[in-house]
Amino acid sequence: MRIVIAPNAFKECLSAPDVAEAIAQGVKCACTEAEIIKVPLADGGDGTAEALVAARGGRMVEMTASDPLMRPVDVQYGLFDDGKAAVIEMAIASGLWRLNEDEKNPLKTTTSGTGEMIRDALERGVRTMVVGIGGSATTDAGIGMANALGYKFLDANGNTLPPTGESMNAVTHIDSSNVHPAVSEATFLVASDVTNPLLGVEGAASVYGPQKGATPDMVETLEQGLSNIEKRWYEDMGVRIGDMPGGGAAGGLGAGLAAFCGAEIRSGFDLVADYAKLDEALDGASLVITGEGKIDASTQFGKVPAGVVKRAKMKCVPVIGLAGAVSSSSASLESQGMMAVFSIVPGPIDLQEAMNRAEEFLQQTTKQVINIWRYKA
Amino acid sequence: MRIVIAPNAFKECLSAPDVAEAIAQGVKCACTEAEIIKVPLADGGDGTAEALVAARGGRMVEMTASDPLMRPVDVQYGLFDDGKAAVIEMAIASGLWRLNEDEKNPLKTTTSGTGEMIRDALERGVRTMVVGIGGSATTDAGIGMANALGYKFLDANGNTLPPTGESMNAVTHIDSSNVHPAVSEATFLVASDVTNPLLGVEGAASVYGPQKGATPDMVETLEQGLSNIEKRWYEDMGVRIGDMPGGGAAGGLGAGLAAFCGAEIRSGFDLVADYAKLDEALDGASLVITGEGKIDASTQFGKVPAGVVKRAKMKCVPVIGLAGAVSSSSASLESQGMMAVFSIVPGPIDLQEAMNRAEEFLQQTTKQVINIWRYKA
Repeated sequence: MRIVIAPNAFKECLSAPDVAEAIAQGVKCACTEAEIIKVPLADGGDGTAEALVAARGGRMVEMTASDPLMRPVDVQYGLFDDGKAAVIEMAIASGLWRLNEDEKNPLKTTTSGTGEMIRDALERGVRTMVVGIGGSATTDAGIGMANALGYKFLDANGNTLPPTGESMNAVTHIDSSNVHPAVSEATFLVASDVTNPLLGVEGAASVYGPQKGATPDMVETLEQGLSNIEKRWYEDMGVRIGDMPGGGAAGGLGAGLAAFCGAEIRSGFDLVADYAKLDEALDGASLVITGEGKIDASTQFGKVPAGVVKRAKMKCVPVIGLAGAVSSSSASLESQGMMAVFSIVPGPIDLQEAMNRAEEFLQQTTKQVINIWRYKA
Repeated sequence: MRIVIAPNAFKECLSAPDVAEAIAQGVKCACTEAEIIKVPLADGGDGTAEALVAARGGRMVEMTASDPLMRPVDVQYGLFDDGKAAVIEMAIASGLWRLNEDEKNPLKTTTSGTGEMIRDALERGVRTMVVGIGGSATTDAGIGMANALGYKFLDANGNTLPPTGESMNAVTHIDSSNVHPAVSEATFLVASDVTNPLLGVEGAASVYGPQKGATPDMVETLEQGLSNIEKRWYEDMGVRIGDMPGGGAAGGLGAGLAAFCGAEIRSGFDLVADYAKLDEALDGASLVITGEGKIDASTQFGKVPAGVVKRAKMKCVPVIGLAGAVSSSSASLESQGMMAVFSIVPGPIDLQEAMNRAEEFLQQTTKQVINIWRYKA
């Protein structure tokens, strides 16, 4: 009996590899003979690097990079496939979480730190770059990232502009003459679940600007700047971004990675699941256990459980979901194809205790579930 | 597929019949073709009347009876088997919960109210009397109960004594000449899980007196009183109680029911389970679902889940337990023979919400469990 364990992280509590390990312990308690395949997953956001590194047997590397206001901070990214591939979460350097309330201002912020991480990986020999984007503090169309890779952004007087949101409108020329040579040698894959285009009412400035601290006036300035950069991509680099889905992700970093690095934008879950070889694991499996911190079945599962259900259905493998908290209407659970969903908490306890003891509770609940599953009447 | 639903009440939350109904709804949601047998249970304490009335298709009757301090209170007991049987919980009239802290004093309290309920039932034609004992405010060897049935307790001067704890030592003669004639016609079955004898260091006064408000001096007075009544039973009535297990239950009411009414003392769970025909329901069943408010598997299950497991084992029927709160070490769960145990709470919530929404949570958790149970790979 093969059991696949394919959970997301439990946000702010356990990483996906830790969740998978706790579930595996529970399976082993109930069913010593089970073949267990752990496939920790992510959706391109938080935890993507850890999940991919665990799935592919890589390691995390540490470095110093610039935060959205160019202050040095400690960051990590993942290396895997013998150091030939890297997984970088843009939010680790350029995320909104790096700023306090007063500092949130997308005119002043930059994705430079993300570019510094990419550069570091390129210089280590990485030629496949997975970039998870989401949670950014920036609306700079990725010019900060590009600047760290050697792109220069010049104003009408030929002066180099600082690569922030407010500089975008002043750019009259993009200078590609000093771009790091490895950029063109590498494959860039962007993991994003945002499908918004770069510009317009559904674009990066209008939709996401306000939550990054932009006032209505600032949104208008940013929109003009993004539009100007989009024009420059075409005129200076011959790249047409247009209304590419996901171009508006992470303040236009999606479009920027496409334009500056030739990146392909993919669904975060699919990208991670493919790298983690979820489909191979599901072949011939008897059961798959997924999970995330909260499963709200009345609206939809999170991206990871929903993705697992979709792929498991193709192979006729039943799915059980485990979560810290389940908010579900019965009908929707079934209609979405999950066989059963359980909360792991053992009674009326507070959130802190639930989080502190999540591994124990995961193991215990898994054991109960497998006890039923394996029972032969 | 026959599924037996045999839960205890969820204390202070849902009656056993309500728990069984919520679980049944969950089973129906997941498995429309299941044959469902509801066997609401109890352990002889709280909820015994409701469970038996539900199991046997009877009804509750209301009356006024005396509380432990002879104040009139509204009470209920159950009639079943076409009015030929009754189930009376002694605590409803004579329980410690009827008194505030200042009133707790087993010298002053009496089981008269319980006797009034028995008399009421006898006069309605009941000839099988199930008496659940436990939680009493009294240590009167059941002389209050007996007094309500016509027994008189006389002192050395031939005066009738009030049937309280402090009167016991003064009794020089038990007058049985005016006992209600139906007492000898009826069968009395006492449901008790206390096995303490009437007298001695493990007896009613020493072990349970203090929690009913007795000081060490009062415990000694009560012990002498119980001992005197025990002697009177032999000398005046020819009944030997000795160290009968359960004689010390409910302040000696166990011994009193045996002596005054010829009662047989049985395990509360077994008595209820037999009346509810649990064994018949288990014959040929695929699964039994039990439950109670809390399941603490690291020590032992409550009496009802443990009893269900014991009986289900005899018929090789797997048992799943549902509880508001589960406190379990994995090893002990298995060693006690329960296939799986789940908490019904869907996440970190407070006790009040867990109790308010217990029916919904029971139904939802049951549905998940049955979804797994019925899955055919």
